[in-house]
Amino acid sequence: MGLRVSENDFYSLHGMWGAYASLILGRIGKGAGLVIGNVQPPQRGLFIGYRLGAETPWILPFCPETKIGLDASAYVDPDAPAKPMLSPADFSYFPQETIERSLSLSGEEWKAGLLSFKVTSFFGSVADPVSADPSLLRQQLRPALYITLTFDNSKKSEPLIGVFGMQGVRRPLSDSTNGTLLGFAHGTEWGFACLPDESIEEVMDWRAIDAAFNGNRPIRRLASEGVLRIKVNPGETKMVHIALGVYRDGIITSGLRTQTYYSSLFQDLEEVLDSALRDTAFMLATAAELDKGLEQSSLSDDKKFLLSHAVHSYCANTELLISEKGDPVFIVNEGEYQMMNTLDLTVDQAFFELVYSPWTVKNELDFFLTRSSYKDAYGIAFCHDQGVADSFTPVGTSVYELPHLSECFSYMSFEETLNWVLTACLYISKTGDIQWFSENRHHLEACLASMKTRDKNQDGIMDIDSDRCAGGSEITTYDSLDVSLGQARNNLYLAVKSWAAYVCIEALFRQYASDSVHIIESARISAQWAASTIQSRMLPEGYIPAVFESDNRSKIIPAIEGLVYPYICGWPELVSEQGPFGSFVKTLQKHLQTVLQAGSCLDSVSGGWKLSSTSHNTWLSKIFVNQFVAENILGFTDPELYRDAVHAKWLRNGSAQWAATDQVHSSDGHDMGSRLYPRLVTSILWYSYMGTSKNCSF
Amino acid sequence: MGLRVSENDFYSLHGMWGAYASLILGRIGKGAGLVIGNVQPPQRGLFIGYRLGAETPWILPFCPETKIGLDASAYVDPDAPAKPMLSPADFSYFPQETIERSLSLSGEEWKAGLLSFKVTSFFGSVADPVSADPSLLRQQLRPALYITLTFDNSKKSEPLIGVFGMQGVRRPLSDSTNGTLLGFAHGTEWGFACLPDESIEEVMDWRAIDAAFNGNRPIRRLASEGVLRIKVNPGETKMVHIALGVYRDGIITSGLRTQTYYSSLFQDLEEVLDSALRDTAFMLATAAELDKGLEQSSLSDDKKFLLSHAVHSYCANTELLISEKGDPVFIVNEGEYQMMNTLDLTVDQAFFELVYSPWTVKNELDFFLTRSSYKDAYGIAFCHDQGVADSFTPVGTSVYELPHLSECFSYMSFEETLNWVLTACLYISKTGDIQWFSENRHHLEACLASMKTRDKNQDGIMDIDSDRCAGGSEITTYDSLDVSLGQARNNLYLAVKSWAAYVCIEALFRQYASDSVHIIESARISAQWAASTIQSRMLPEGYIPAVFESDNRSKIIPAIEGLVYPYICGWPELVSEQGPFGSFVKTLQKHLQTVLQAGSCLDSVSGGWKLSSTSHNTWLSKIFVNQFVAENILGFTDPELYRDAVHAKWLRNGSAQWAATDQVHSSDGHDMGSRLYPRLVTSILWYSYMGTSKNCSF
Repeated sequence: MGLRVSENDFYSLHGMWGAYASLILGRIGKGAGLVIGNVQPPQRGLFIGYRLGAETPWILPFCPETKIGLDASAYVDPDAPAKPMLSPADFSYFPQETIERSLSLSGEEWKAGLLSFKVTSFFGSVADPVSADPSLLRQQLRPALYITLTFDNSKKSEPLIGVFGMQGVRRPLSDSTNGTLLGFAHGTEWGFACLPDESIEEVMDWRAIDAAFNGNRPIRRLASEGVLRIKVNPGETKMVHIALGVYRDGIITSGLRTQTYYSSLFQDLEEVLDSALRDTAFMLATAAELDKGLEQSSLSDDKKFLLSHAVHSYCANTELLISEKGDPVFIVNEGEYQMMNTLDLTVDQAFFELVYSPWTVKNELDFFLTRSSYKDAYGIAFCHDQGVADSFTPVGTSVYELPHLSECFSYMSFEETLNWVLTACLYISKTGDIQWFSENRHHLEACLASMKTRDKNQDGIMDIDSDRCAGGSEITTYDSLDVSLGQARNNLYLAVKSWAAYVCIEALFRQYASDSVHIIESARISAQWAASTIQSRMLPEGYIPAVFESDNRSKIIPAIEGLVYPYICGWPELVSEQGPFGSFVKTLQKHLQTVLQAGSCLDSVSGGWKLSSTSHNTWLSKIFVNQFVAENILGFTDPELYRDAVHAKWLRNGSAQWAATDQVHSSDGHDMGSRLYPRLVTSILWYSYMGTSKNCSF
Repeated sequence: MGLRVSENDFYSLHGMWGAYASLILGRIGKGAGLVIGNVQPPQRGLFIGYRLGAETPWILPFCPETKIGLDASAYVDPDAPAKPMLSPADFSYFPQETIERSLSLSGEEWKAGLLSFKVTSFFGSVADPVSADPSLLRQQLRPALYITLTFDNSKKSEPLIGVFGMQGVRRPLSDSTNGTLLGFAHGTEWGFACLPDESIEEVMDWRAIDAAFNGNRPIRRLASEGVLRIKVNPGETKMVHIALGVYRDGIITSGLRTQTYYSSLFQDLEEVLDSALRDTAFMLATAAELDKGLEQSSLSDDKKFLLSHAVHSYCANTELLISEKGDPVFIVNEGEYQMMNTLDLTVDQAFFELVYSPWTVKNELDFFLTRSSYKDAYGIAFCHDQGVADSFTPVGTSVYELPHLSECFSYMSFEETLNWVLTACLYISKTGDIQWFSENRHHLEACLASMKTRDKNQDGIMDIDSDRCAGGSEITTYDSLDVSLGQARNNLYLAVKSWAAYVCIEALFRQYASDSVHIIESARISAQWAASTIQSRMLPEGYIPAVFESDNRSKIIPAIEGLVYPYICGWPELVSEQGPFGSFVKTLQKHLQTVLQAGSCLDSVSGGWKLSSTSHNTWLSKIFVNQFVAENILGFTDPELYRDAVHAKWLRNGSAQWAATDQVHSSDGHDMGSRLYPRLVTSILWYSYMGTSKNCSF
């Protein structure tokens, strides 16, 4: 099962959908554990292993040398003659090369010796809490994941003691459940449990792993380590299901008072774990179906890895809240930055959400309108984000954007407006939610007017920076890249994205409001202006420079990025060589052919994709979008071109510490920013959108 | 104001009563900040200082080199040419010797240069939530404390910029309050604020201190440092009041579901801070009255310090909860160990609580009965504690006690039963709560029966270990000391404490239920047996050995400890040389005289009190109780004997890192255990109980 990975020393974030919580594990010799309200890898031990008869115990290497909490020595006289309170178990770690690790869409599996340890954290579709049955919601919004432990003692003649445990727990769960659960918890917030079984015991001790292997000791509730001790008879293969769960109670956000949505469905951690364990069979079967789907697909193994890794990190960043009025509020947090619903991520993640939770896209669109739209001197615009670290900003503001700047931290008013428009077009066209369209078409019209106002010279691309910049200049989502992608005005990437927004508005109104002649025509004209302007910038060398000023000669891949939107919306003729913008599309095709060369936009060391010829900082989430465009829209069909192995290695090796990392160095994939990131789920395009637009000309 | 201390480099825990939260500060060059749900010093910067004109800014040395959260570099291309985003302020720390620090009962004050920085955290009495007016409760249960900053620019001709700020904050409070508060918060959980004033601005930046001194920059909401920037004109002295507050919402305990009590009075952190700031004048006046009381007392300066320091640490450990039924549940957490309501601390802390919150003693007594009493083979007994780290143990169990042991972590069944009895006697006799007595007298009777059953040979002292020990032996509260104080059976300390429990029961029933002839007589006889047994153990050398077996020859001070109870209960004749136990009291007087010698129970290096001649581990909370007995009951009136300066130095120097530390090494006071501890409030005996027993024969 799953995709075996050769570099097995990297962190995965196994997110629990909507809980802003995850099990983080995977670095050899480093910490692991559950995290809530953030995505930073915890430095705590995760104990998984076994002892066969009187042999040396073997443990997976997830235990840093860090001690959590007090040790026994804090309680006894340090000057008294030392009495060993517990004989050390003298265990060994499985050497890295003897461990098999494999990822799947639903989770991952580790195998070593007689042990298999499987994490199942992703279960696919999530139902809309506004309309779904509460029992379904309890299944799909439950802040829990599963561990399946298997000890194969079938061929051995000695009894085996298996263990699963964690540092940082403070109480046995049998205490608060009267023994209906066995396991451990940290306060009311996180824990793990299995259903009672006579072969399983709770062990809590200063060094729980030693205690688990060294015979019977009473539970030491002052310790901070807890282990489940599992007896496996000779000749037996034993499988144990363990649920890991989290729970945050009460109001957890400021600026807007909300609670976790799951707290409206579950009373406490114990109920979450109990409910999860009772649904084990169904949930694991659901996950197995998901995995089968990906395994049977035609994606390369490396693409399967990239998608799976991305999905896990995305889920770790999702957070479903409930307002005091009872409305669901969906947030995707921005990896290490913790910004809430960054709109330039929303538009990319929409591809994923439209597959598994289309209602979250609507929820984001609505919430951006009420919370994060504003009017500047030129009309409606949208904020970059809605807050940071569970703190909502005041209406109409973001945490990110500041005046007086022309680089990182400046405003993204224009691009965020495009992002809202494009996300809305994707949502309406993929779901056919005509009601939402009719309720919100005036906002789309206002966006169109605003976009056009910012195109003062009527060439289809933005000329005017928002007055919120206060003398500074707007930037794009590529904020940490150089000017080739960072500046908004006269920017090729943004120009094509503007074109996409215009054509999508045109097509959308044509499809759903064909009597809106003025809107359709207004959008159509701006799209044509944009296409003409962009085409006119083509250089004799066969590419379009990244910025239409200062004699810029950067070559960028994301020139083609905007083509994805009309295609995914289901209007392939708009991006077809034979369509109304055929010559524009051919120009971009030529552009890509020119730039996609070693030393330009293919890194000369690694061969990986480099978004800009003038920057080593390249973004995997965007590579994935652009690759989809290249392969599915522009007809670049040579699989060798896509360098899947390079990009997979970047994540497993260069950025091993940071799970799905977006900004990496194109030479070796080492992290440069956007660590622990959700946006890499753009890789869903490869899996769920291939040939989506049936009229595709390729 | 307050007591100036020469060693000024030690941590204070400024607890917010009932919130299990505190402001921790005081180590030079180490971190400081607010902590909730624990008492461990945080490693965060606390920024307090000023810049006069264009001079170098001066800052108090509360900033470790630790960085909290991401830096600006996480957002920008690390390979891009470095652009300094902020000029460093190049500030200096006030040198330690130029700083004056003084403690008072209500808080402490730091003075350096033109700056004074005052913390006010203790406000004295706390009303009973069952009966008090909600408006009074909002004042007394508010999880907040005050900072008073004064910048004296009266004699200068340049404007001054003052700062107050913290690391670890994530949002400006003006955002969520529409500017009615200025300040910063960490999520929904903690923060600081002042009322708006045109001379005060919020500054949030990557290095907020640099930003505050280096001109006007917009608030950078992605940063993790926030500072209030205060302008003080030439010729002006400006005083600013800042409230620091905390808030935990929802169910925060397991085993028994409770919320913070204050969450029933306040909606959120903002309301706590706003309410605190509106009450500033009244609260500071209340605190000033408290301080005046202690300052005008006859206590030595070192005793004043010891009491003040102890009170702050005690408050940091207090936690008032509310059950789902609406009942208040009062917890004192046990310092670094985090055990909840350790009963062998409760009995000592009762002296303090009976002065400031007598209802908490009743609350504890009731809660121990319903939650932590059990019946073993010999009758009723009580558990050591009620849980750890906000996790309640199941009814009738503790986190601490384990079977099969004869030392640390064994059961304390007998001593805890004495502790409940003595706490009940203290409560009834000090409050005159006859109703509680009549509702609970049968429990006292059951305790008497249980105590007597454990005295199998009828010599007044315990012979039988609880069957819960399962072959092990019971221990005393002095669990980490050697056998001289650690073992329960045949222990001198516990024998005198048993005598005290018997005489207190006798006196209590004589006073409130004089018709209970059997109880009175039964208690009286056991008291006499105990006194006789103890006296009979007097050695020719003039002392009683610590343990009545194995030819033990340890000399211990706590032989006299038990005398405190009848005295404080108001029955001084029972501990008088002229009373019914006159010869017993004289024996103990002689014992103390013998043991209180250098090399025995006075440390030969430091001169400090050493509870046992055979251990260097000595406990300050117990020293204070025993000193009170020595001075007030046994007539040891030479002030030189009490070594106040030594004991104060132990805390300010040897255990500087751990605020009020109980277990210290008698040579230099370095910490050996029980760090960040609440129990040192036994020092209240010196202040509030001198001459309490009017019939005292001294």
